Amino acid sequence: MIKGVGHIGIFVKSIEESVKALSKFVDFPELTIKESEKMGVKAGVVNLGGFELELIQGLEDDGPLAQFVGEKGDMIHHFCLLTDDIDADLVKLKERGVEMMDSTPKVGVRGKRIAMSNPAALNGITIELSEP
Amino acid sequence: MIKGVGHIGIFVKSIEESVKALSKFVDFPELTIKESEKMGVKAGVVNLGGFELELIQGLEDDGPLAQFVGEKGDMIHHFCLLTDDIDADLVKLKERGVEMMDSTPKVGVRGKRIAMSNPAALNGITIELSEP
Repeated sequence: MIKGVGHIGIFVKSIEESVKALSKFVDFPELTIKESEKMGVKAGVVNLGGFELELIQGLEDDGPLAQFVGEKGDMIHHFCLLTDDIDADLVKLKERGVEMMDSTPKVGVRGKRIAMSNPAALNGITIELSEP
Repeated sequence: MIKGVGHIGIFVKSIEESVKALSKFVDFPELTIKESEKMGVKAGVVNLGGFELELIQGLEDDGPLAQFVGEKGDMIHHFCLLTDDIDADLVKLKERGVEMMDSTPKVGVRGKRIAMSNPAALNGITIELSEP
């Protein structure tokens, strides 16, 4: 069952530069960096008053994510809905005809079981389901 | 002083269609619709477990916002940092050299005093400062 919104995922050119810019807005709390060679990304996770920002940077300077933000700029890519039972929720979504990119859970860059929606399900917006 | 993240603002083609799609993911709580003729938008605000989604739709079918999402699809446009003193924070941001779209607070569609950052300040991401 969905419990609320856990984080937003932001595609960035540079975690370091984003943190520098964000530090002008807020007294910046501790940043945790997670990396996934398999997914080709690293993620800088920061908790702002109980809500998380996930700054996602491509591992390769000429990889698809780096190319995307190089052309388009940084973008807020998804928001995350927290679920206490991702398997049951994926069954429910399938019954309701929701298109998912991941029909079964995968392990995300942060080591949690996640599943991404197909942007078409929400006219271009991507939702991540994640266990807490 | 910044207290945390208040909401995300999502440009949508249709609040009604977005609510219908989101309702497949979550048992959808009450939606509050606010409208601003001056800003040319209406906003559907929904609270998901303490965090708000703000679904922003253009009032005119052929207005700039409707045209934008018509071409690009829906998009997560900004995230909101809650401040208990927006005037003081705007002074501080100016001292730190942060480019803002609004150098002084304006009243947003939800009737709160807000100020939007210039996307250039964060490589394309827009931040809204808002009083609670």
